[in-house]
Amino acid sequence: MGEPQSSRPRATDVVRVGLLGYGNVGVAFTRLIDSQAEAIARRTGLELRVTRVAVRDVARRRPGSAVSDAGERLSGDAASLVRDPSIDVVVELIGGIEPARGLALAALAAGKPVVTANKELLATCGAELLAAAESGGVDLFYEASVGGAIPLIRLLNDSLAGERIVRLMGIVNGTTNYVLTSMSEEGCDYAGALREAQALGYAESDPTADVEGLDAQAKAAILAGIAFDADVVASDVYTEGITAIGASDIAFAHKLGYEIKLLAVAERVGEVSVPAVAVRVHPAMVPREHPLASVRGAFNAVFVEGDTAGELMVYGRGAGGMATASAVLGDVVAAAHHRREDTRGRAVRRERVEIQPISALRAQYYLTLDVKDQPGVLAAVAHVFGRHHVSIRSMEQIEVGDGARLVFITHTALEADVQATLASLAELDVVGRVGVLLRLIGQEP
Amino acid sequence: MGEPQSSRPRATDVVRVGLLGYGNVGVAFTRLIDSQAEAIARRTGLELRVTRVAVRDVARRRPGSAVSDAGERLSGDAASLVRDPSIDVVVELIGGIEPARGLALAALAAGKPVVTANKELLATCGAELLAAAESGGVDLFYEASVGGAIPLIRLLNDSLAGERIVRLMGIVNGTTNYVLTSMSEEGCDYAGALREAQALGYAESDPTADVEGLDAQAKAAILAGIAFDADVVASDVYTEGITAIGASDIAFAHKLGYEIKLLAVAERVGEVSVPAVAVRVHPAMVPREHPLASVRGAFNAVFVEGDTAGELMVYGRGAGGMATASAVLGDVVAAAHHRREDTRGRAVRRERVEIQPISALRAQYYLTLDVKDQPGVLAAVAHVFGRHHVSIRSMEQIEVGDGARLVFITHTALEADVQATLASLAELDVVGRVGVLLRLIGQEP
Repeated sequence: MGEPQSSRPRATDVVRVGLLGYGNVGVAFTRLIDSQAEAIARRTGLELRVTRVAVRDVARRRPGSAVSDAGERLSGDAASLVRDPSIDVVVELIGGIEPARGLALAALAAGKPVVTANKELLATCGAELLAAAESGGVDLFYEASVGGAIPLIRLLNDSLAGERIVRLMGIVNGTTNYVLTSMSEEGCDYAGALREAQALGYAESDPTADVEGLDAQAKAAILAGIAFDADVVASDVYTEGITAIGASDIAFAHKLGYEIKLLAVAERVGEVSVPAVAVRVHPAMVPREHPLASVRGAFNAVFVEGDTAGELMVYGRGAGGMATASAVLGDVVAAAHHRREDTRGRAVRRERVEIQPISALRAQYYLTLDVKDQPGVLAAVAHVFGRHHVSIRSMEQIEVGDGARLVFITHTALEADVQATLASLAELDVVGRVGVLLRLIGQEP
Repeated sequence: MGEPQSSRPRATDVVRVGLLGYGNVGVAFTRLIDSQAEAIARRTGLELRVTRVAVRDVARRRPGSAVSDAGERLSGDAASLVRDPSIDVVVELIGGIEPARGLALAALAAGKPVVTANKELLATCGAELLAAAESGGVDLFYEASVGGAIPLIRLLNDSLAGERIVRLMGIVNGTTNYVLTSMSEEGCDYAGALREAQALGYAESDPTADVEGLDAQAKAAILAGIAFDADVVASDVYTEGITAIGASDIAFAHKLGYEIKLLAVAERVGEVSVPAVAVRVHPAMVPREHPLASVRGAFNAVFVEGDTAGELMVYGRGAGGMATASAVLGDVVAAAHHRREDTRGRAVRRERVEIQPISALRAQYYLTLDVKDQPGVLAAVAHVFGRHHVSIRSMEQIEVGDGARLVFITHTALEADVQATLASLAELDVVGRVGVLLRLIGQEP
């Protein structure tokens, strides 16, 4: 149940933290430690000090009074920081792969625990870094890389350590959830919702990484790796973004009792003898009664299904400098306690695992088709579905300009068959545009 | 970040578990360990064995094939079990105060970690048992006492160890949440919803402990104790149940954008120099957009507000033999790992803390009043509110039989003033019945 600790006064251990990178999170983390040192010492028995901060460009201007906060601690020599014998814990907040990867490996090889908030790094070189941590006999912690302040990784690694996780579904990107919530609640279209999110600081001026699902893709790989003790990387994750979703899709979802959410999904598939993992990011139709449907705005949540624990969900702020700094601080405290106890966190040698292709998914599908408004269209379209063994559960037709839009819900079907259906439909003369394809969450009743 | 562990084959440590009590949870726990021993060993490096089971009455019939499951392990001698040098971890599933308290203290004094699912025990003698655990240098774990399989206590104790918790609000009783959900979604009245819950096994034939809030009271005391490192006992918790809530209250709540939920609330109040804790259980009006409003049926959830982490929520199945057994197993694994590492969980010497009386609460209130349908009634009633400094935000009148029901929402007011208002209103000739009083969650806009 965690970190030995007492509320009674006692000698505190000094923990010297070396910080790599000094952007928003680095500044928030340093200020948190500088201002809360006494309270942290009271609660944890640790006297935390950021003693060195390494940045690429010492001369660059930084937000607010950050430079004076950093003061003499600031230097450009990251390579010497990770080998400095006076540093007890290295915190990596540079982002990206290099030089973050090389510095983290050097720190681990030097026997220093590493705490990072770097999702790209974990989703690309996670297995390599975890193996280096195991060889070095030290901790590699990365709670802040997914879900901001939500203690997700701790939940999966520690609290559910005895549990066999069957499936995990998460809203792990605040920007897209903010946009989809605005579309759902205020009836905005996608472009308007995105502009609003940008104006409020929930989306960046170049929103590509968020709206195309790339941020969620990295997080899905990290979560699948932990849930299934597997070496899963970002490129294993089938990914679609939310840019194709329109106001009429949201309206249809509501009518059918669903909300549209961008989900990261990871599940065990295949036989026990041939274990495989399915992992994907795509917008999905979530039944309104499902707890994930109620996750609004920029919040994140992850829903976990375990063999004996059943359904669990954790929810919270997924981003923001202070939330992320708080997660980094939690990891630093855990790493420092382990160092004092001469123990360390759960280290697992991750093996590559078979990744099930998206074509093998079985689900119900929502799809829209813009067609010419003329007799015989539906018969031609229905024939294509039937030819590919995709059974239609319901169809509705709405007027769109001088044509019509057909909205289908299928019975449970194989993704490969649905994709073949779409390809054949696109070749029909009467079909103007194959529109949105959404997967439904939950079993067909 | 927790329990050292490796996925590679290695020698496993044998952990001998002694079980006190053999009801539903005890049987589920024993079967879980007996049937999953190999999988647990693979995941945790521990070979768990239930080697002794002590019950009060060995001859009593037990559910299913439980007796043959227990076999030769079953005995009536609990006192010798807790002192048996061959037992590594004691699991207490007797329930109630004695003999559970005496046996747990004896086990801790004998240097054995104790895992319990006993909320009454923790909510009555928690500080005494935690002190005994600290003196004995061993763990006392009780994850299963609140929230079934939800790793709530671990979240508060470990994941948020560096966090200053400001407030905690939970739906911690599945029976009452099932009843309130049925009333809200199916329009049943209280009696009908309760009968349905009883028929489905979500409520006991004598539902008093659930519907009067006593089960939630014990859990509120446990959660407040952990969140604020304070010695809080069940009798500190101001408690109201759900028996007074009618279909018209639910209808009004919906109209105003709220759901009615039985909440356990614990918050820091008072000055830093004079810390105090407010802790209470009562039905509350929860805004529909709040994550707790979406917690349906027999599910539980706890919403936590931390200084830097912001808002967090955990959600899951709060009861059931298997969910509880899974939480007990998690604690046994943690205790066994600590024993191997010769470390142990967070031990805190809990001090008594000032408990703020309910009269000092400031909130918005919903209240109903059945009155004679005659001129001048509203003026008389409004005068009473004014006299006690309670300002009315909105009032609505509905016909009820040959009289009228007045439904008020107040501006933020002091509970003492609201209670004085109710007492004065009850004395008015025109008032037939002072009905339901509900507190609203959230700041007044």
